[in-house]
Amino acid sequence: MSNTALTATARADLRAIFADALSTDAGERLTYGYDNSRRQAMPDAVVFPTSHEQVVALVRACRAHRLPLVARGRGTNTTGASVPTSGGVVASFERMNRILRVDVDNRIAVVEPGVVNGDLQSALAPQRLFWPPDPTSAPFCSVGGNIACNAGGPRAVKYGATRDNVLALRAVAGNGEDFRCGTPTTKGSTGYDLTRLLVGSEGTLAIVTEATLKLVPLPSAKRTLRATYADVAAAARAVARIMAQPVTPCALEFLDDQCLRLARAHGGDAIPLAGAMLVVEVDGETDTLDSAVEAVSRAARGDGLVELIAARSNAEVTALWAARKALSPALRTLSPNKINEDVVVPVSRVPELVAATRAIARRHDFPIVCFGHAGNGNLHVNLLPRDDAERARAQPALDELFDVVIGLDGTLSGEHGIGLAKRDFMPRALDANALAFMRAIKAQFDPDGILNSGKLLP
Amino acid sequence: MSNTALTATARADLRAIFADALSTDAGERLTYGYDNSRRQAMPDAVVFPTSHEQVVALVRACRAHRLPLVARGRGTNTTGASVPTSGGVVASFERMNRILRVDVDNRIAVVEPGVVNGDLQSALAPQRLFWPPDPTSAPFCSVGGNIACNAGGPRAVKYGATRDNVLALRAVAGNGEDFRCGTPTTKGSTGYDLTRLLVGSEGTLAIVTEATLKLVPLPSAKRTLRATYADVAAAARAVARIMAQPVTPCALEFLDDQCLRLARAHGGDAIPLAGAMLVVEVDGETDTLDSAVEAVSRAARGDGLVELIAARSNAEVTALWAARKALSPALRTLSPNKINEDVVVPVSRVPELVAATRAIARRHDFPIVCFGHAGNGNLHVNLLPRDDAERARAQPALDELFDVVIGLDGTLSGEHGIGLAKRDFMPRALDANALAFMRAIKAQFDPDGILNSGKLLP
Repeated sequence: MSNTALTATARADLRAIFADALSTDAGERLTYGYDNSRRQAMPDAVVFPTSHEQVVALVRACRAHRLPLVARGRGTNTTGASVPTSGGVVASFERMNRILRVDVDNRIAVVEPGVVNGDLQSALAPQRLFWPPDPTSAPFCSVGGNIACNAGGPRAVKYGATRDNVLALRAVAGNGEDFRCGTPTTKGSTGYDLTRLLVGSEGTLAIVTEATLKLVPLPSAKRTLRATYADVAAAARAVARIMAQPVTPCALEFLDDQCLRLARAHGGDAIPLAGAMLVVEVDGETDTLDSAVEAVSRAARGDGLVELIAARSNAEVTALWAARKALSPALRTLSPNKINEDVVVPVSRVPELVAATRAIARRHDFPIVCFGHAGNGNLHVNLLPRDDAERARAQPALDELFDVVIGLDGTLSGEHGIGLAKRDFMPRALDANALAFMRAIKAQFDPDGILNSGKLLP
Repeated sequence: MSNTALTATARADLRAIFADALSTDAGERLTYGYDNSRRQAMPDAVVFPTSHEQVVALVRACRAHRLPLVARGRGTNTTGASVPTSGGVVASFERMNRILRVDVDNRIAVVEPGVVNGDLQSALAPQRLFWPPDPTSAPFCSVGGNIACNAGGPRAVKYGATRDNVLALRAVAGNGEDFRCGTPTTKGSTGYDLTRLLVGSEGTLAIVTEATLKLVPLPSAKRTLRATYADVAAAARAVARIMAQPVTPCALEFLDDQCLRLARAHGGDAIPLAGAMLVVEVDGETDTLDSAVEAVSRAARGDGLVELIAARSNAEVTALWAARKALSPALRTLSPNKINEDVVVPVSRVPELVAATRAIARRHDFPIVCFGHAGNGNLHVNLLPRDDAERARAQPALDELFDVVIGLDGTLSGEHGIGLAKRDFMPRALDANALAFMRAIKAQFDPDGILNSGKLLP
């Protein structure tokens, strides 16, 4: 049931660190061996750290025994980044989930990596603060996982993704040495930026044990608009116009016609049918919101607009977002083997990207639908093969998609990361010398390659 | 006149790359050997690259001859980071100053490193866009220099510093290999973040030859307030209140009582005398500005407020900023050997920082004045020794200042960087393992240590 046998001494060393917080039970190992990429592999053991010191001891023990070690948040990621494909130890951070400090005056929170994103937001709301990253999985995913893959979400268009909202980290590198980097200040120019180097590194350099997060004051009010367009190109042109004027919305989501049909099946008549739809949210202070909405509305209007309306009730807002958030699972029902990409291109290239995905879908004869964070040019291109024949054609289609994206000055991932899923495409997105420097950095932090080996770097 | 002799073959190799754009003239070498730290050293040669390919050839030639190489913007930095203390070659980027592309739809500019910050802003203004970094030296400093030291300025409180506003780079590492990193998109999670690793690395890892900058739409209007307080503590409490509410100003500058006296001497009666003053700017759309100003004003009011007034005319706004910007040179007139620190602490700790600087000034018996970007907790603490005896006492005073800052959870530099001036304090600000990883990264990018050797890392 395992790729690598756990030797008796390795097991004894782990037991000495973790006592009962170590499991080698096959059922438990199975549970901690998958993620939302539907990949699966068996680790040899699962441990549940509760302190920084335990993580230091863990990394050192794994290094001594040359045991692969995968840090795991809640396994919601879609790239296989938390699947223990080399066996070894999975460290699940679900018990290291305390909010250590919320400092309202300085707008920071200090947390352990296992805290669930949604739990953090709930704890911050009474203080009228929030942490910007809001992936669809926010109710389930951990802050540590958000840091590992540089998670985003709709709000990133105004407030940035995880990398823009982490100030300082405490971590243990793969060589067993622990360190702190960054400071709890919004500015800093004291040496190389190790903090942002760790964000998005998918646990391949170091394991984060504490994070100092940048918080933002909750705006007093929010308004939700939906704009439907005759076709995808008209919607994409509206996105570019909205992003070119000074009032940046706090969400600018795109759904193509096929997504709208699926969303309507889930969300009912609140979801219109059209060539494409934008869901636009504008936040701010109550008395400034009317004019902000008007500025964004002006930009949303133009050639190809079918209808622009404000959501009339909270129920309608809820229905719009429920439909948008249900898309990802709904697409899986259509295609258990859906491939959910999160490519990103410059905003003005979105029409070309969508047109290219349609051409790829026609050429390979299976459905591809697009939705996502249009304000960042970050589209979730979902390949939906329905049978073995279509699945066989999905790989060359994906290959063509990445070529299109690179050709449009875009890149492989906006917010999901690389993991296993996109690892082999990295040489296409990055030049050979940049990749060589990434490998060199990996070798410095993790000389024996024990941390999440085989992920991110080809 | 030089530390290291330039061999005949080295000179011939440089001549082959640069032809007439190479100087070994003593006068020219003198000119390119200083910066605004008032440090000075003689390079053996000065070269003026005009292309990426020349920079690749230059780095390779320097590596082959083991020649130190210092990339230079406009020499406005205050830390000695561009002083060629090991001799060798200075590469001045003043001729590599083209704006290659302004892409309004995607809010990006692609520039060569030698473009002057102010020239870039002038070129962007007709497009209603700007690049956020706005150091006081903006009319003279280069974008490449801004990238090297992670420059900030007043606007950083709302729009971030340089690191937050660079999307992609082209660069040549110290090993002679060139690479591109990042993408012209506002989101990306494709491998390690080499872009932000290079920002703030002071030319010690690689020499930037092209930068893709994130632009922001110019707000339609701006309003300037000045708030005077009975004392520094009251002003600092107001800063914390302003930063805790949702309307973030686009400038939140602090001047202590001594700075006000100096500023009044320069700016005239428009500058009030008081225990401390805040200059607060709020930007936004014309019709939202009244309520935004009101929200900020509410927060500015409180215990110790003397007067809160809006600038009544453009002339008054100009006078306020002219006085603020004149402080730095004015202080140099008072003390040719002024030490201008730019320490940063969490906003709520600003009162303790200012109180501590006063205690240090009393203890060592020479003037210390404070002004700067209070919204980020980034204060320019200016030590002003006036004679040799006071100069001798400045070093232990500086030492105490850094201890105070570290004790307040702050760090050595908010926006000027480390260079030579703060290099030896790095072990106090960073833990030994973090420093070891920085050294390891340096060794990977620049194995022979030719790039700006002796800077940043102790």
